[in-house]
Amino acid sequence: MSELKGLFYPRTPTGKASIVPPTPWHYSGELVTLEYRTDPKKVAALLPEGFELAEEDPGALAAIWADWQSTGDDPEQLLDPIRVQYKEMFIVCRCRFQGKTYSRCLYIWVDKEFAMLRGQHQGYPKKLGSIQMSRPVTVGKAGPRLEPGGTFGLTLAAFDRRLAEARFTIRKESESAGFVNGHPMAHSRWVPAIETDGTQSLEEVVTMSGFDVEKGRCFEGDFDLAFFDSPVEELLDIAPQEKIAGYWHEIGVSWRAGTTLARKTLG
Amino acid sequence: MSELKGLFYPRTPTGKASIVPPTPWHYSGELVTLEYRTDPKKVAALLPEGFELAEEDPGALAAIWADWQSTGDDPEQLLDPIRVQYKEMFIVCRCRFQGKTYSRCLYIWVDKEFAMLRGQHQGYPKKLGSIQMSRPVTVGKAGPRLEPGGTFGLTLAAFDRRLAEARFTIRKESESAGFVNGHPMAHSRWVPAIETDGTQSLEEVVTMSGFDVEKGRCFEGDFDLAFFDSPVEELLDIAPQEKIAGYWHEIGVSWRAGTTLARKTLG
Amino acid sequence: MSELKGLFYPRTPTGKASIVPPTPWHYSGELVTLEYRTDPKKVAALLPEGFELAEEDPGALAAIWADWQSTGDDPEQLLDPIRVQYKEMFIVCRCRFQGKTYSRCLYIWVDKEFAMLRGQHQGYPKKLGSIQMSRPVTVGKAGPRLEPGGTFGLTLAAFDRRLAEARFTIRKESESAGFVNGHPMAHSRWVPAIETDGTQSLEEVVTMSGFDVEKGRCFEGDFDLAFFDSPVEELLDIAPQEKIAGYWHEIGVSWRAGTTLARKTLG
Amino acid sequence: MSELKGLFYPRTPTGKASIVPPTPWHYSGELVTLEYRTDPKKVAALLPEGFELAEEDPGALAAIWADWQSTGDDPEQLLDPIRVQYKEMFIVCRCRFQGKTYSRCLYIWVDKEFAMLRGQHQGYPKKLGSIQMSRPVTVGKAGPRLEPGGTFGLTLAAFDRRLAEARFTIRKESESAGFVNGHPMAHSRWVPAIETDGTQSLEEVVTMSGFDVEKGRCFEGDFDLAFFDSPVEELLDIAPQEKIAGYWHEIGVSWRAGTTLARKTLG
Repeated sequence: MSELKGLFYPRTPTGKASIVPPTPWHYSGELVTLEYRTDPKKVAALLPEGFELAEEDPGALAAIWADWQSTGDDPEQLLDPIRVQYKEMFIVCRCRFQGKTYSRCLYIWVDKEFAMLRGQHQGYPKKLGSIQMSRPVTVGKAGPRLEPGGTFGLTLAAFDRRLAEARFTIRKESESAGFVNGHPMAHSRWVPAIETDGTQSLEEVVTMSGFDVEKGRCFEGDFDLAFFDSPVEELLDIAPQEKIAGYWHEIGVSWRAGTTLARKTLG
Repeated sequence: MSELKGLFYPRTPTGKASIVPPTPWHYSGELVTLEYRTDPKKVAALLPEGFELAEEDPGALAAIWADWQSTGDDPEQLLDPIRVQYKEMFIVCRCRFQGKTYSRCLYIWVDKEFAMLRGQHQGYPKKLGSIQMSRPVTVGKAGPRLEPGGTFGLTLAAFDRRLAEARFTIRKESESAGFVNGHPMAHSRWVPAIETDGTQSLEEVVTMSGFDVEKGRCFEGDFDLAFFDSPVEELLDIAPQEKIAGYWHEIGVSWRAGTTLARKTLG
Repeated sequence: MSELKGLFYPRTPTGKASIVPPTPWHYSGELVTLEYRTDPKKVAALLPEGFELAEEDPGALAAIWADWQSTGDDPEQLLDPIRVQYKEMFIVCRCRFQGKTYSRCLYIWVDKEFAMLRGQHQGYPKKLGSIQMSRPVTVGKAGPRLEPGGTFGLTLAAFDRRLAEARFTIRKESESAGFVNGHPMAHSRWVPAIETDGTQSLEEVVTMSGFDVEKGRCFEGDFDLAFFDSPVEELLDIAPQEKIAGYWHEIGVSWRAGTTLARKTLG
Repeated sequence: MSELKGLFYPRTPTGKASIVPPTPWHYSGELVTLEYRTDPKKVAALLPEGFELAEEDPGALAAIWADWQSTGDDPEQLLDPIRVQYKEMFIVCRCRFQGKTYSRCLYIWVDKEFAMLRGQHQGYPKKLGSIQMSRPVTVGKAGPRLEPGGTFGLTLAAFDRRLAEARFTIRKESESAGFVNGHPMAHSRWVPAIETDGTQSLEEVVTMSGFDVEKGRCFEGDFDLAFFDSPVEELLDIAPQEKIAGYWHEIGVSWRAGTTLARKTLG
């Protein structure tokens, strides 16, 4: 009846009510990236058919806390901060697909619905949670400075249970923020058939990278990281066995589109 | 590498971490259903290709507030109420697809992520919001009684803005709770291609109904309903022009699966 | 300059902005009361000067989850449910003061600010938390029935940590809901001097009871109750050593005023 | 029975469970201060007995959004950010008391309970609300830069209603952040008697200032500010009639104690 607009639902004649605005999406954020090694068999157990462990350092993971602002192109959105700000915590591995090395998000929690939907589009397995992270300060005694010794607290909770706690202390400036989350992402997009019988209406492997990446300040340091149990999580399986390094860093990036690497559809 | 389990993401060897448990899903709820008429052209404007207005009373809509508990078959889930309780507000029209009459959800807000994901599976265009509704009481002065004169307040907000307010007053017992939301649902499931170029990886029309429907107490009455503006909503377009009737009612229902009515896929 | 109105702050010419409306306050609620015994020495350690342990069963405590609606006399308030509904979890002991037996709240968490302020007025040591409790249902599979075998889940969290979990199963109807929370309350109202030097601007012991108490349905049953650790709580000190009995019950009550039992003021 | 510790409730043998830690309290924050003039009669109407309008510019108010981290001396607290971070929005006037000029907070909303209690101690009339403000960024397109042209969005909501919206654009660096909030505070601490009969157990006027004030970056600029109606607020009475100037600025400050200027007690 109508030419409906909107990337996601609800689609309307104007697209105004769509849960997310049109791409491009622009992001500015502060991140803490904690790289560690776990049992590679536990990483392999989380990879779907067609994926393999990375050839080098296959048990390396990155646990990342991020405090983002994000917006579409509409300048009005950026001035309504409740529609712009969100935090997330996610865990990334490296893997191989079709002979290339990718980064892949294993678990992720965000605290806003628009971030959840954009993540689904990109194949991130987003749940909602409470993500907390210290912010650096320049004056006063109530926060870390961006300098050696500055210490950040980081927590994750969902359904009123703490799932993760970490502390990170800056040791020195750094050129880069680790290697685990440094490849294009390779994510699965699964749509179970409404028949809910184990068949999939859609199974895709997609890849993507941002554009206009702008790196800000970056510091390396030491950290502690602990996961806790929950009846609806499996974080203990990929708990740290050996620490690699931690980073506090700033990123600006935009995102417009990805590429489908593989697709299976039902009849 | 692994046989992954889980209806949705994250898929793991056990399925324990999946954002929703396996079907069947069981629901017990209290609802307020407010039926009214709006401009049929505005309803038509929200229907995608292949859908038509209902033949009778095409501008009839139902605005529904619901306070649910829901659970999978695992009895442990039901005893962790934060994983069970949620509220939602949704707006339903009737429509025709492939020559049959269906109910269809135009807009919907919920306050928990698991409800959002289950809704996406079923084609409900779920956003997060703050849904508030009076609860009936049996003692004291701080709530309505389930009897003539009992008055319920109902509100909806998202992104710190009130979107809807309503009041409903019981007039008498009723056999049914209206006609707009009484058909099988016909919903669209859209998955935009990761190329984000206007193409769709998947477009489906699905239909579904619950099973083991159990109707509880039901009352009919009078109501007021008002929608408010927001930069990211289009509720004013379907504001009430004429009231039909309102209902407070209880429903128990289970859900296992739906049926695909139409499917288009890329490639 | 002005005749300011309002029980609490902010006081204004009209009193409209006051954080709580004038008394009387009316309450309608569903409660789960779990009575148990802990080490009486741990109870005594929480009583201020002038208070003594109850003569009988001095280690008896009640852990209570409550789902309330509450309102002032203004009928408009009752129809804006976000200003009316709140949940709380609190722990009550019995004690003696000036030769009489009272109930006394040791710890309490609520989820709305207006409930916090009213509680402060009454000497309840209210913090904010996430209080979750199963609701009884009459239809469907997603909740307990108000009949033998009906099982309720109950949780408490604050600052993203679970503090308490309980389960209660109805065994039979009951005439009363226990004895620990059955006396007038005797609470301390402390106002530290702004000099913040250990002196108090005000120290009072106040007592109060509700009026127009209306008892609804009441059931007795069995329960499990566990407390968990937190850097800012001391619940483990008063953990259950022996269970007494649990109850699900409804209460309607109004509150207008209390009585000062003792007062010390500075200067 | 016991020597109880804790500045506020709940008082326990250790003080660990007290809703706030002992002073000193340390704060590091980013603030947006918007100074404007309203009708002086409306300011006078909000001043209690004994207070007078400021002699100069008596209608000048400051609407301030602040994003704080705060902590006691315990270094563990600072590393649990959910117990450290909060936002607030408050409105300050100037006034005279006992022949001196003070700043005075007329209305204030915060988003954490510990901030609410500390504020009560200091006489701030704190309610809970949703306070949102843009954060400056150094990279990417999703936030303002701390330089001329950088624009910040600011909102306030309570009970699911927007109460205030503002925008602030940096024009130049500044030495100071306005004059309205620049005096020691003079606040009222009212404790209504539990008899709730209009008598007060305690009425105090207190004053206080921070120590170890550390000023960070400071920018002046232009702004828009609008207030909205609510059944439980009176902001429209003090809406802007004339803008003075706006500021984005950083502050570090510690707080230990205040001074009682006047006290009336019952009995």
